[in-house]
Amino acid sequence: MSSLKGQSLIGQHWIDGTRKEIRAINPATGETLNPPYKGCCEADVEKASELASSAFDSYRETSLEERATFLETIASEIESLGEALIERAMAESGLPQTRLEGERGRTCGQLRLFADVVRSGEWLDVRIDPSLPDRQPLPRADLRQRHIAVGPVAVFGASNFPLAFSVAGGDTASALAAGCPVIVKAHSAHPGTSELVGQAVQKAVSRCRLPEGVFSLLFGSGREVGQALVAHPNIQAVGFTGSRSGGMALLATAQSRPQPIPVYAEMSSINPVFVLPEALSARAKALGEGFIGSLNMGAGQFCTNPGLVVVVKGDGLDTFIEAAGIAVNESASQTMLTPGIHQAYEQGVSQLSDNAQEIARGVPGRDGYQCQTALYTTPAADFLSSKALQEEVFGAASLIIECRDESEMLSVAKQLEGQLTGTLQMDEGDMGAARSLLPTLERKVGRILVNGWPTGVEVCHAMVHGGPFPATSDTRTTSVGSAAIHRFLRPVCYQDLPMALLPEALKDSNPLKINRLVDGQREQINF
Amino acid sequence: MSSLKGQSLIGQHWIDGTRKEIRAINPATGETLNPPYKGCCEADVEKASELASSAFDSYRETSLEERATFLETIASEIESLGEALIERAMAESGLPQTRLEGERGRTCGQLRLFADVVRSGEWLDVRIDPSLPDRQPLPRADLRQRHIAVGPVAVFGASNFPLAFSVAGGDTASALAAGCPVIVKAHSAHPGTSELVGQAVQKAVSRCRLPEGVFSLLFGSGREVGQALVAHPNIQAVGFTGSRSGGMALLATAQSRPQPIPVYAEMSSINPVFVLPEALSARAKALGEGFIGSLNMGAGQFCTNPGLVVVVKGDGLDTFIEAAGIAVNESASQTMLTPGIHQAYEQGVSQLSDNAQEIARGVPGRDGYQCQTALYTTPAADFLSSKALQEEVFGAASLIIECRDESEMLSVAKQLEGQLTGTLQMDEGDMGAARSLLPTLERKVGRILVNGWPTGVEVCHAMVHGGPFPATSDTRTTSVGSAAIHRFLRPVCYQDLPMALLPEALKDSNPLKINRLVDGQREQINF
Repeated sequence: MSSLKGQSLIGQHWIDGTRKEIRAINPATGETLNPPYKGCCEADVEKASELASSAFDSYRETSLEERATFLETIASEIESLGEALIERAMAESGLPQTRLEGERGRTCGQLRLFADVVRSGEWLDVRIDPSLPDRQPLPRADLRQRHIAVGPVAVFGASNFPLAFSVAGGDTASALAAGCPVIVKAHSAHPGTSELVGQAVQKAVSRCRLPEGVFSLLFGSGREVGQALVAHPNIQAVGFTGSRSGGMALLATAQSRPQPIPVYAEMSSINPVFVLPEALSARAKALGEGFIGSLNMGAGQFCTNPGLVVVVKGDGLDTFIEAAGIAVNESASQTMLTPGIHQAYEQGVSQLSDNAQEIARGVPGRDGYQCQTALYTTPAADFLSSKALQEEVFGAASLIIECRDESEMLSVAKQLEGQLTGTLQMDEGDMGAARSLLPTLERKVGRILVNGWPTGVEVCHAMVHGGPFPATSDTRTTSVGSAAIHRFLRPVCYQDLPMALLPEALKDSNPLKINRLVDGQREQINF
Repeated sequence: MSSLKGQSLIGQHWIDGTRKEIRAINPATGETLNPPYKGCCEADVEKASELASSAFDSYRETSLEERATFLETIASEIESLGEALIERAMAESGLPQTRLEGERGRTCGQLRLFADVVRSGEWLDVRIDPSLPDRQPLPRADLRQRHIAVGPVAVFGASNFPLAFSVAGGDTASALAAGCPVIVKAHSAHPGTSELVGQAVQKAVSRCRLPEGVFSLLFGSGREVGQALVAHPNIQAVGFTGSRSGGMALLATAQSRPQPIPVYAEMSSINPVFVLPEALSARAKALGEGFIGSLNMGAGQFCTNPGLVVVVKGDGLDTFIEAAGIAVNESASQTMLTPGIHQAYEQGVSQLSDNAQEIARGVPGRDGYQCQTALYTTPAADFLSSKALQEEVFGAASLIIECRDESEMLSVAKQLEGQLTGTLQMDEGDMGAARSLLPTLERKVGRILVNGWPTGVEVCHAMVHGGPFPATSDTRTTSVGSAAIHRFLRPVCYQDLPMALLPEALKDSNPLKINRLVDGQREQINF
């Protein structure tokens, strides 16, 4: 079993911070956990950033195979941490064992998916327009395009997925896949989990004989270390999952740099579910129960938690509310991730309670920082005029919006801010209503679901875990799935370079055997 | 021949502005041209934006064929304007006839290229991950991704390409191709040219029976109309080519909106040319002449104008400077685009003159707003310590940086800001020097050229007309070439939608016959 050092990692060197200690708290017991992690300072950010920049040119030109092997090695090293990782993550997050084992599987699977993505070379988006020396009135030069990594990336660990959206989570995996060195600012809620995963990445860097600057892991305050990282001239992009205020603070810093950089912040979403009339009438009870099942997942601490259910008054509504209410009453209390998240949840629920009608509460928590599931309802007219009701409550709390008719349902959809997801619960007879909602949903959300629940984000090629602001700070991207790699790439065009100077991806002979666009047509690959 | 109305176009309606008149000035004669264009106000921006938003859902779902035909119709309508367009553009820009005829060809060719791009459907980036109902421990849902248009786009016409980077230039063509309605803020230097092209687009909208909000054209002040456009909640992205200060002002507005939006501003570049030792020694005279030929193109008013030549002292340098100097001395004066540009050019040259040593000046202009080619030289050490020498001078002015050795040349490269292009003049024996410069160039520029000159930007698939800040405000993109369409798209994922609700691009039968990624593999298309 790995032991914890309580230190930050700069390249291959573990260092002691000089700032205030960070201590994990077991949210189930309130117990403070060892070891303490002294916070880093700006000088540490400087060292890590210099190291990252010096590693950049060689790391970004590692072969596809080398880089893929590196990602796979990280996955194996994480698995090698064994039960120590799960135990520590349980203690630091209050999340149950099976959930964390599943999350570890997802995290390692994600790294291996990106290994496959790297090998395929699709992300290079190679385009070749051969020269046309005889073209009139002017000849055309030989023009070739590939994508290269943007530079060192700062990644911020998230509290709610201590493995999958943290030190070696989706942001890190996709940035490393793109060829970017990564500096992680560890989330202070799970420092030990972060250190363990950091050890795994450190070993992988060493085993793969990569330049040490490819990866660093810093503990410290968001205000000092986080801001210094985003402001550092060597950092070229930022990955973040967390609160709207946190994301916006990083965005403001990134935009006010002498050279602004992109920030990929996944921030805020209430994930509306539209229950259409026929579905409501046909399966009100099952929908009510399914809804609360999704709401309670991970104590509601999912970015895709269904925080809003929009229904039209009519057949089945009473049954739906009754079934949901019973399910809420029967919901066991669940430990939340941190005291701070628990406090914010209590405030959010109290705001709902002040502005909407309570349907039911779950079993109260006995001690520690526990979430007591909460369900409210309000007429659409009140929702439309209340800013308070449109804010995300992070945790298992949701609001049912009752609409007079389908046109009011559409008004609710139109007024929503940008969202990660939008869900339709519908039956065959709801096709017309669905069609009239779809264009609005497409403008508002990154992922549209039918007859499912938004929690559960598949790591695959077609996933979009993103969406219009404020769901994310950059609606053109996803933070989950293989397309996440594109966030950390930029195109470079090579005009009339001698074959010897061209990158492998662009050589005539296609030595990487990758999919390329030649004169606007897909090239036939003959292996 | 079309006659000029002196009005703005909102959808299909020509309207009179209420603000200060804009009058074109013939920079060759100083003559003020008719008609006057009264500036628009915020209420006009509101009308155009509402119309654009109401057109959005139907326009973005036009078929690939309909949208391609629309782009082709715009091209034919521009051609139908005949000589009137060229004559007016000549009068408003001082640019010669052949150049403007070439630019018209490029503009129409660009529209037709985007028609082909639309038809190919590659831009949809379709990804399908079919459901895996039997997967353990959890089944996988059916997940499908396509890209959709981001929403109405504001485009700012540029002064230096009154056709190719203006009303129906690359930004407009790529935004319309993506499915975005466009509102153009016309450049005040060429209102008549803008109106004529606006008439052509208006006719195309009408002939193609598209909703009128697909296109509007507003005259007015950048401060009032431009800022109001970028601030309007219906506008979802901005395309701009122009000055650094202009681009940064729009960027600041876009970032301070309640919902920030992307700004694609192509702003500032001095396009360094590195003349490597063997090339210098072997062909100093030809290089000196070629350099000045590129410098003088369009009176130096190209974004890719070679404003910096970096050489190592040694064989051939005297010959190179002498040849360049003679070519400068022989350079005829050329009319610049506007009095303002001429004034800024004079200021920039005076700043070079204060901080570097003059090599030669061209033939002085006799009257009007003429550019007198200017060439200076300075030691690298002075360049590295002078901010003034690193700024773009828009117009035919350039600076030769003399380096002690190749390592000082690399220091110059490393200190440069982001650029659109970087050029290597090299011979076989310069391969080593080129290899050591390339990684730095890749980090600094969007396009790397060997043995060419940066002026002349091919409209094709592999082109990158972009680059790190401050060359552009978004280094992940290009504003020229088919990849420019990606600036105006965002991904949407569809989970478990019934086939009847899925967009055509995502249906099992692949009715659009487009290239798709299925389970991470390119789908075989059987036609």
